[in-house]
Amino acid sequence: MSIVVVGSVAYDGVETPHGKVERMLGGACTYISLAASYFSKTKIVAVVGDDFADQDAKLLADHGIDLEGLERVPGKTFYWAGVYSKDMNDRTTLRTDLNVFADFKPKLPASYLQSPYLLLGNIQPSLQRSVRHQMNGVRLTGGDTMNYWIADYREELLKTISEWDFLLINDSEARMLSGEYNLKRAAARIFEMGPHSLVIKRGEYGAILFHRDWHFIVPGYLLEEVFDPTGAGDCFAGGFIGYLAEKGFDLQQGHIDAKELSRAVIYGSVMGSFCCEKFGVDRFRTLTREEIDARFKEFRDFTEF
Amino acid sequence: MSIVVVGSVAYDGVETPHGKVERMLGGACTYISLAASYFSKTKIVAVVGDDFADQDAKLLADHGIDLEGLERVPGKTFYWAGVYSKDMNDRTTLRTDLNVFADFKPKLPASYLQSPYLLLGNIQPSLQRSVRHQMNGVRLTGGDTMNYWIADYREELLKTISEWDFLLINDSEARMLSGEYNLKRAAARIFEMGPHSLVIKRGEYGAILFHRDWHFIVPGYLLEEVFDPTGAGDCFAGGFIGYLAEKGFDLQQGHIDAKELSRAVIYGSVMGSFCCEKFGVDRFRTLTREEIDARFKEFRDFTEF
Repeated sequence: MSIVVVGSVAYDGVETPHGKVERMLGGACTYISLAASYFSKTKIVAVVGDDFADQDAKLLADHGIDLEGLERVPGKTFYWAGVYSKDMNDRTTLRTDLNVFADFKPKLPASYLQSPYLLLGNIQPSLQRSVRHQMNGVRLTGGDTMNYWIADYREELLKTISEWDFLLINDSEARMLSGEYNLKRAAARIFEMGPHSLVIKRGEYGAILFHRDWHFIVPGYLLEEVFDPTGAGDCFAGGFIGYLAEKGFDLQQGHIDAKELSRAVIYGSVMGSFCCEKFGVDRFRTLTREEIDARFKEFRDFTEF
Repeated sequence: MSIVVVGSVAYDGVETPHGKVERMLGGACTYISLAASYFSKTKIVAVVGDDFADQDAKLLADHGIDLEGLERVPGKTFYWAGVYSKDMNDRTTLRTDLNVFADFKPKLPASYLQSPYLLLGNIQPSLQRSVRHQMNGVRLTGGDTMNYWIADYREELLKTISEWDFLLINDSEARMLSGEYNLKRAAARIFEMGPHSLVIKRGEYGAILFHRDWHFIVPGYLLEEVFDPTGAGDCFAGGFIGYLAEKGFDLQQGHIDAKELSRAVIYGSVMGSFCCEKFGVDRFRTLTREEIDARFKEFRDFTEF
């Protein structure tokens, strides 16, 4: 079943210990939709400038991604540049030019409104809410946020996530949002805010899924080489919602299949791990569903006892 | 089958965000042997001063630990004091008084020499080697080390671990020892040094076992409250070797049961998690094997998919 994804489509400049790329396709919506596209029909809502290259639109279209909601306006596409530390655990933003993204007002095409799955990438909480309210038949809503919105737009963010089924954030964001250092207690507090599932992304250490009174933990995949971690968290989100949509999973009907939710976390982890193997979105130019399923099996091999 | 454990028996002063204890039983050998004692007969080799309290010896004896190799000499027992950071991920050593430990020359009682399992706690590499050489029938040898020995006693350490089957260290030590940041490559380099198994302890993030061309990863147990992480790594080692000894596991006969080795990592993780639940060794005053097996099952529940 189809997924609507909203967020940024951008150009990124990235420097890691493995090299430097001045300008390449990036943005949360790009990574989420590419990852999700391996599982389910994916429809994006985003804005780009008139500098947006045909070949970049083609990469998305070649993955079967619906671009009807990709608005093109005069001006420049959102640009971000950053540099990673030697161990790639820290990154410094060198430049953020919002450009056409500054006036982004997501408008959903009529053909999107009945999609049952909605993934809200990290943008201003009020925009996330407006997308949620335009949808008619949504059965599963989740999304991402960041420290900036948690600190400075707290009330708006709380209003927004109160309508979500799941929240995907990292551990420091979960601590900041909940005011609890301990992750079990952080999850309990976040459930009081609305979501009944919380996925905590821990980078190289994997992820935790909390759902009411149980949790599932997966360690991170050990890569031989991390070329560029940009977008890995978004690819996690794409794999997670992608698998749930493929299975027609529904949190709202009272029936929770814990193992299916856990497998969605594994597929999220799989997509995040592939993302790091090349610069930017490059890994998705060749990645196949067979490789994805083989890595899913690898996760089973190195965690089963 | 029985295990010989060598290392420090000490008094510790510990301060964590949950409280402060001026003086309590501690030391690597203490933690390792208490944890191992739940699985197999454990015999310790260590030295204490004439201030060593009967009640502390009694705690060890009550766990069935053989104290014949616990030397008592005039003077004071090794004393260490440290304080943990608020998130407990860092600790600062306030005081290290080697006392009688400064002249420790491990001598194994005759009744220890045929033990098939040997766990060498973190002490000077040449002392670890002397213990290894006193043993006659050892079938599985492993141990711990630390940054100090890796940096300043490298040649001696390499000679020592060349005779070991497994090495249990943390990720920064593995990187330092191997000169490789990437843990897969670090493991490959460490295998060239002798051990055919490497367990990397990652604190709250769990552990990785590397064995030749495969690996196993377990995430850390989510505790509601970490009271005192002192000794958790040593308890991991105790649970790991304890389970292998209980099963009569033998790495040297060419047959490696990957699942049994993986289960030993889980039992190590279980023992490390219990250790953090109370100050010092307090959790071991009441801990039962039933609780240990129940937590092992919990690990299965939160990692299976």
